[in-house]
Amino acid sequence: MKGAEVAHFSFPQKILFKHCDPAGIGFYPRYVEIINDAVEAMFDDCLGWSFAEIVKTGGVPTAKLNIDFKAPCRLGDQIQLDITIDRLGRSSMALTIVARGGEVRFTVDQVLVCTDTNGKPRSWPDPVRAKINDIMEGSV
Amino acid sequence: MKGAEVAHFSFPQKILFKHCDPAGIGFYPRYVEIINDAVEAMFDDCLGWSFAEIVKTGGVPTAKLNIDFKAPCRLGDQIQLDITIDRLGRSSMALTIVARGGEVRFTVDQVLVCTDTNGKPRSWPDPVRAKINDIMEGSV
Amino acid sequence: MKGAEVAHFSFPQKILFKHCDPAGIGFYPRYVEIINDAVEAMFDDCLGWSFAEIVKTGGVPTAKLNIDFKAPCRLGDQIQLDITIDRLGRSSMALTIVARGGEVRFTVDQVLVCTDTNGKPRSWPDPVRAKINDIMEGSV
Amino acid sequence: MKGAEVAHFSFPQKILFKHCDPAGIGFYPRYVEIINDAVEAMFDDCLGWSFAEIVKTGGVPTAKLNIDFKAPCRLGDQIQLDITIDRLGRSSMALTIVARGGEVRFTVDQVLVCTDTNGKPRSWPDPVRAKINDIMEGSV
Repeated sequence: MKGAEVAHFSFPQKILFKHCDPAGIGFYPRYVEIINDAVEAMFDDCLGWSFAEIVKTGGVPTAKLNIDFKAPCRLGDQIQLDITIDRLGRSSMALTIVARGGEVRFTVDQVLVCTDTNGKPRSWPDPVRAKINDIMEGSV
Repeated sequence: MKGAEVAHFSFPQKILFKHCDPAGIGFYPRYVEIINDAVEAMFDDCLGWSFAEIVKTGGVPTAKLNIDFKAPCRLGDQIQLDITIDRLGRSSMALTIVARGGEVRFTVDQVLVCTDTNGKPRSWPDPVRAKINDIMEGSV
Repeated sequence: MKGAEVAHFSFPQKILFKHCDPAGIGFYPRYVEIINDAVEAMFDDCLGWSFAEIVKTGGVPTAKLNIDFKAPCRLGDQIQLDITIDRLGRSSMALTIVARGGEVRFTVDQVLVCTDTNGKPRSWPDPVRAKINDIMEGSV
Repeated sequence: MKGAEVAHFSFPQKILFKHCDPAGIGFYPRYVEIINDAVEAMFDDCLGWSFAEIVKTGGVPTAKLNIDFKAPCRLGDQIQLDITIDRLGRSSMALTIVARGGEVRFTVDQVLVCTDTNGKPRSWPDPVRAKINDIMEGSV
């Protein structure tokens, strides 16, 4: 797994009541919601392209999502999702996410695609591509 | 991808309002919730070991979840998740899930682990193991 | 509370793992999701106006939602939501919902409003109004 | 409606992608989730009794929830939930919540009950009752 040393964006999350199941641990569909929250925050805070803007002309749906659950999260745990942008294609983006709360709780490989309103892949807008390249080169 | 021909369990799901995002398509964390619903139904209907029973002595948390999103689902679509049990370990189970509504919408590779109340892996209970073996051998 | 004797629509729901909290009982935001599922099914099955159709020209947002939680639901419980349409206004509809699983689990008073794409109240479409009137008069 | 002037606790919330429906506005079951998040944060930050602690000996289930939806929330909106504790009973607590983002978006009357592990009402623990009384008297 890549991305452990130099995360491009970090997203803190407390494990709340709504995230936990009858076994008292995080319910994995809720982790996926947290993953989406983290990516949404990265687009907004870091790439300057909010989901509110994105949905006006298309979307950034997920094409691939691979998650390894390493250790459970419990109610009240404070975790952090560290996102690294690994690859930028014409219309795709590959991310690695490592969620830690002390130890690693789960790791994620995710591929997003930039699409138009018909769901067809389209090129990343130039200013967004420039921003992502800056981030990947560590110049931000 | 395996499991396409002989699904061991099928789970129908209509794409509802709650599943859809502002872009009008299924929101991927909701697909993961549907995946859990399908697996929960398989344990209940097919393996004779309901989640209500399971939580009394442990759980069946997910260790790995790999999803390929092939085509979007839209509000009102009727899809079906076909689950195939691929491998049964001492305390693990590997599943393939194919979600179709006409075309393939998404495919899943998932690994579950049978755990005790402390979250430690434990052997599948004998009657459950026997049932799963019967299913995998096609004798059910 | 009205509506107990002659429900206009009934919606069965099993209490699933995703509905339950670390205390092992139904998490109330999930009940609200179930309430929406029930109303969505009523529009689709009973009023002939699916949410997939509705969103093309507006919506039916909730204006008021009053819930009394009478008894908890537990994982695996089978409940049923009985919906009665109490009043039909030009653009509004008042519902009573009683959720039972043996005893009453929760009761709901809900007001929906028929809106256009700008969120402004609009009259119920004539065929839908006719259908609702038939249902309220018991002629369906 | 009470509680507008002197909120005892304020909870900020950005309206995220996960909160929004195909009509592009907040989905009301998600508002209820936000309401729970706000109450959970109040218990943790303000009453010194976290949900992680509470579930060890019981719960604080909701007995009544009345919501008036005044104006929709849209993706990206920043809102704030202002909570006022209106009444404290032996085992109950009545709250008023006003959610604003500029204008009022929704208002809530909610009654919580302090219960033991069997779901039976029990007295608020003395230190928690003392804390709530201090808050209600404005001495905190």
